[in-house]
Amino acid sequence: MRALDFRSDTVTRPSPEMRAAMASAEVGDDVLDRDPLMDRLERRVAELLGLEAGLWTPTGCMANTIALMLHLSRGDRFLAPAQAHVLGSELGTPAWLAQGMPEALPWEAGPGRITPMQVFRAAGRPGPYYTLRSALLCLENTHNFAGGTCTTAAEHRALVEQARALGLKVHLDGARLWHAAAATGDTLADLAWGADTVNVCLSKGLGAPMGSVLCGSRDLVEAGRRIRKMLGGGVRQGGIVAAAGLVALDYLPRVPEDHAKARRLADGLRAMGFRVAPPDTNILLVPVPDAAAALSILEGVGVRVLPVGSALRFITHRDLADADIEEALDRIRAAADRLVTTWEGDRPMV
Amino acid sequence: MRALDFRSDTVTRPSPEMRAAMASAEVGDDVLDRDPLMDRLERRVAELLGLEAGLWTPTGCMANTIALMLHLSRGDRFLAPAQAHVLGSELGTPAWLAQGMPEALPWEAGPGRITPMQVFRAAGRPGPYYTLRSALLCLENTHNFAGGTCTTAAEHRALVEQARALGLKVHLDGARLWHAAAATGDTLADLAWGADTVNVCLSKGLGAPMGSVLCGSRDLVEAGRRIRKMLGGGVRQGGIVAAAGLVALDYLPRVPEDHAKARRLADGLRAMGFRVAPPDTNILLVPVPDAAAALSILEGVGVRVLPVGSALRFITHRDLADADIEEALDRIRAAADRLVTTWEGDRPMV
Amino acid sequence: MRALDFRSDTVTRPSPEMRAAMASAEVGDDVLDRDPLMDRLERRVAELLGLEAGLWTPTGCMANTIALMLHLSRGDRFLAPAQAHVLGSELGTPAWLAQGMPEALPWEAGPGRITPMQVFRAAGRPGPYYTLRSALLCLENTHNFAGGTCTTAAEHRALVEQARALGLKVHLDGARLWHAAAATGDTLADLAWGADTVNVCLSKGLGAPMGSVLCGSRDLVEAGRRIRKMLGGGVRQGGIVAAAGLVALDYLPRVPEDHAKARRLADGLRAMGFRVAPPDTNILLVPVPDAAAALSILEGVGVRVLPVGSALRFITHRDLADADIEEALDRIRAAADRLVTTWEGDRPMV
Amino acid sequence: MRALDFRSDTVTRPSPEMRAAMASAEVGDDVLDRDPLMDRLERRVAELLGLEAGLWTPTGCMANTIALMLHLSRGDRFLAPAQAHVLGSELGTPAWLAQGMPEALPWEAGPGRITPMQVFRAAGRPGPYYTLRSALLCLENTHNFAGGTCTTAAEHRALVEQARALGLKVHLDGARLWHAAAATGDTLADLAWGADTVNVCLSKGLGAPMGSVLCGSRDLVEAGRRIRKMLGGGVRQGGIVAAAGLVALDYLPRVPEDHAKARRLADGLRAMGFRVAPPDTNILLVPVPDAAAALSILEGVGVRVLPVGSALRFITHRDLADADIEEALDRIRAAADRLVTTWEGDRPMV
Repeated sequence: MRALDFRSDTVTRPSPEMRAAMASAEVGDDVLDRDPLMDRLERRVAELLGLEAGLWTPTGCMANTIALMLHLSRGDRFLAPAQAHVLGSELGTPAWLAQGMPEALPWEAGPGRITPMQVFRAAGRPGPYYTLRSALLCLENTHNFAGGTCTTAAEHRALVEQARALGLKVHLDGARLWHAAAATGDTLADLAWGADTVNVCLSKGLGAPMGSVLCGSRDLVEAGRRIRKMLGGGVRQGGIVAAAGLVALDYLPRVPEDHAKARRLADGLRAMGFRVAPPDTNILLVPVPDAAAALSILEGVGVRVLPVGSALRFITHRDLADADIEEALDRIRAAADRLVTTWEGDRPMV
Repeated sequence: MRALDFRSDTVTRPSPEMRAAMASAEVGDDVLDRDPLMDRLERRVAELLGLEAGLWTPTGCMANTIALMLHLSRGDRFLAPAQAHVLGSELGTPAWLAQGMPEALPWEAGPGRITPMQVFRAAGRPGPYYTLRSALLCLENTHNFAGGTCTTAAEHRALVEQARALGLKVHLDGARLWHAAAATGDTLADLAWGADTVNVCLSKGLGAPMGSVLCGSRDLVEAGRRIRKMLGGGVRQGGIVAAAGLVALDYLPRVPEDHAKARRLADGLRAMGFRVAPPDTNILLVPVPDAAAALSILEGVGVRVLPVGSALRFITHRDLADADIEEALDRIRAAADRLVTTWEGDRPMV
Repeated sequence: MRALDFRSDTVTRPSPEMRAAMASAEVGDDVLDRDPLMDRLERRVAELLGLEAGLWTPTGCMANTIALMLHLSRGDRFLAPAQAHVLGSELGTPAWLAQGMPEALPWEAGPGRITPMQVFRAAGRPGPYYTLRSALLCLENTHNFAGGTCTTAAEHRALVEQARALGLKVHLDGARLWHAAAATGDTLADLAWGADTVNVCLSKGLGAPMGSVLCGSRDLVEAGRRIRKMLGGGVRQGGIVAAAGLVALDYLPRVPEDHAKARRLADGLRAMGFRVAPPDTNILLVPVPDAAAALSILEGVGVRVLPVGSALRFITHRDLADADIEEALDRIRAAADRLVTTWEGDRPMV
Repeated sequence: MRALDFRSDTVTRPSPEMRAAMASAEVGDDVLDRDPLMDRLERRVAELLGLEAGLWTPTGCMANTIALMLHLSRGDRFLAPAQAHVLGSELGTPAWLAQGMPEALPWEAGPGRITPMQVFRAAGRPGPYYTLRSALLCLENTHNFAGGTCTTAAEHRALVEQARALGLKVHLDGARLWHAAAATGDTLADLAWGADTVNVCLSKGLGAPMGSVLCGSRDLVEAGRRIRKMLGGGVRQGGIVAAAGLVALDYLPRVPEDHAKARRLADGLRAMGFRVAPPDTNILLVPVPDAAAALSILEGVGVRVLPVGSALRFITHRDLADADIEEALDRIRAAADRLVTTWEGDRPMV
């Protein structure tokens, strides 16, 4: 039985077109001279986002880290919506590496979303010399752990304007900004509006083997290039993987197909009795009594997912066909009874 | 008009007894040999807390920092009740210096207090290698920004037991643990029970000119001594200020007097119409429509306070006599009308 | 006129065999599951070095950084031969990221080489608690800025034994260990003997588009995997580039060809009157009166080099054929007069 | 037998005048309001050095750390004469805390002294984006481990001018700048000329119980005040120890007496056959065959010293009278035979 892998869209594999592009890619030493295809990819992505320049990074994690290192220094506070990746999913790099003190803002505007008023309240007025200074607002669109929820361009603009008025920089973790654009109908540039830095990922939904692009002003990108070298991300003949990244962008018009798969999955699960909200994009959270037990039951029937808090997270992607969704629903249906009777409750382990 | 200074108990000045003790203090080079009075003070405080050893630090800030540096390293998460000093009041040192990623726990057990269940939920099960590891629970007793609220020895013990069961270390920021003991009737040792490190402050309510003591096991204290030297806290003839610290401990039986002053202040303010909860200890939070405006009005009538969020914080202490409390109430009464009509509301500054 | 690129062997481009291997590479999500080809490459390289396990990194810079982060913490000193890459060529990461305080050891055993006695003297006896602790010896073989000089297995072993006797860890930066093995006749395993960590580079002389492998014990490699994720080196479908790395290892028997090219270049330059020591491996340092001027003159005749101090550095590699060496000599001969008359001397710019 | 303590001038104890001044010191909360005596002390010292402002720190270690944190950030290199305190005696804080990569310059201008040409060569021309940037020159006057050697005002000025021409900042560790001024006849201001930051110590030769002052421009000092708070050096009623610091300055005219004591000690030791260079100031290095053994022999006869490399370091100070020097010489004479026969040589411990 072939496992159906809903754990993440990071599991997507390079397509034949990407493989062909990699095999014939023109390359250079990117540290000494700039690799021609990396350069082309960086320009192309920056253009899509309406920003001046781009910087390829091996991972989205490095892109976020570079951005935070650019914006923060010791004594600075940064704000982010609760459960943003920069808060809990980057192994603490925003703290120990970028030196920022985080403050998580609860989701007062809906799952994964915050209001300008919250930014205003949290950033507050500058205090005396011995107090933290609010320096940065981090946004995440779509917000992964909220269930792939979207912030619209209008909401984004209001948040950025508030941040600017308070003197904060803005970084947008747009690993799945492609999906937000597809779901809201807003352009990528509108969703990136006014941010100092934005990173987008080629290796998740779009299927490249590796790579993200961090975009911003030319000056920030040049400063980021130096940090990338420090962190060990200054690869040489990166044109190989950049070639795959350029092909990956061809998938953009097909992103809505993955959203449709997620909706179909949600409908099917709802029909079985699961309480599932309709997904905004390609991420679906399914609350279960005991996520660890449920995950193991699903694994047993060949459906692979990851837990997010007390829910199971399904991510649909280009390597799962429509038929795979139906097959997954069949398999889950067979295990559904066990899934809803695994409740053991949270309790202290003392 | 003499200003009545309620801004903090850090404003307390050394008493004549402290000055006499400093003038005649026996001293040594504490880096090379251990200063005799610093040694005596460290032992005395450790004994009070039921811990093996103590380490003098110039400030409570350094004591907290050393503790977090002892317990945390990159990739670690630490938990603390919302608005704990280690979250927002140490200029981000827990992040950039001790390398920990903070998670603030809301006050589910009352102002400044959290439950073992919250610790369990937040620390969670250890994840795969690429996830943060929960390493430390930080407590604060009394909790300053919650209004000097106390955690009882029983509550403290339940939190420590939960943390231990999850493999977390425990640090207690006990800058005002003296006050918690006075208010709850619990011993200092019971309030410090099971913590790996506890720091207490000699320079706040007790009136020494400077100095805190960080206590813990002999091994931790020796490791902390090395960190103290790194941070620049390895003073030479520290016996001078240690002498004041030893005298400061004589004030312990009189700490309840400061609590009585705070209650008297609360009663007087309530009589004027302010909504004030009865204070647990020597800290009183007075919600006002506009803290910045109110602070300035009070300054004008010779009553000095600091803002905490949207409240004014009054701290009573040994340098304010009972008569000063009455005088302060008189002065506030004269300004009371203006204090309640300063409302302008929170609004985005865009 | 095609430029002949002697700036570095990092400029080497993937061969047709590598491209074919990449196009058909089997891949997986290396963060979630371990990519099969990365796994195979890591095992293969570890085996060559006689170490338990390996960890692919996008760059040699990241491999060195991870190694130093594994071995060092604040308050530690590390020793390295003068002009080692970890001293001057990693943008300070050994200091600000790995937190170590470096001490450069002069080349008392010949260019790029140090003696056990130097290690003994520099590491010294452990001092009191307030002193630096010597924790790590970093070696570099071949030593790049000394001119690609080799440490033999016997010398290496004596250094490692001395370090061990003093309680130091040992990291070997073996970016070009392949070349040391080819030149000394020692096996890679003998040249890696006793080191806690060794990194070797696939992207320099061997020609892979990117990637190094850091080897060590299983425990260190697992700890390193966590750090790699922190730094942003946890790529997903890394099998693509690992495939190229596996093919790159096929070049090992041909490394001596690159040494022969360097010797031929040295002979030719010596015949023109340059004082050039015979190269140990594929790196040749050519002292000139004014390196910046000379570099620019050579650039003008289509020979690209980099300056190292007051010398020009030529690196020979697989993308330069024997005929290219002759062509380079012809071009240099044409410019030789200008090269030796560029002297302006070092002088303060005041 | 009273031990004669030549280990350091940090062992000096507060004089009766200092104790009286501390007992009656006017104090304030320096974090909230600026303590009046700390303020006076900071102004007084800045004035002496010809700089705009000063910042009291509990230790010279913290003063150096703050200075380096002000001047350096990741990717920066700093230069210092070999064996400067910032290289080997601050527990690596210049690296892990101030994030700078050190480069030690050998003493080409005499013990503890370097030339402008060395600064020029080491700082070099700025390289491409992926290289370290030279950002800071650290000087130390007197240079402790070179034997309290002096840099004259003229030499200092030439070094500063060279550094400036290269765009480097300059920090002067002037823990014993008082002694350099006394020995060279130059003013403190001339010896501090052009430096961005200078720290001087009140707790070493001058005898205050604790405290250094870091001086610089008003802007740098205000930025330093924020860093001081971060590091835990923001004490409250610091006027107590500032009072001692102000009295300590009265010792300045008597510093030459300590130099005379050192010369007398040197003469006496030379008469016994020790090879001792005449000391510039109050520090004397006495080469011995085996420093550890010699130190222990001297300890046995009541003469306390510390080892510096393969020498014994004697520091003379205000708490050692002329008669103590004679007494020390008598005691050493009695042990002299044993001191010169302790040779065991340096050898690897393998």
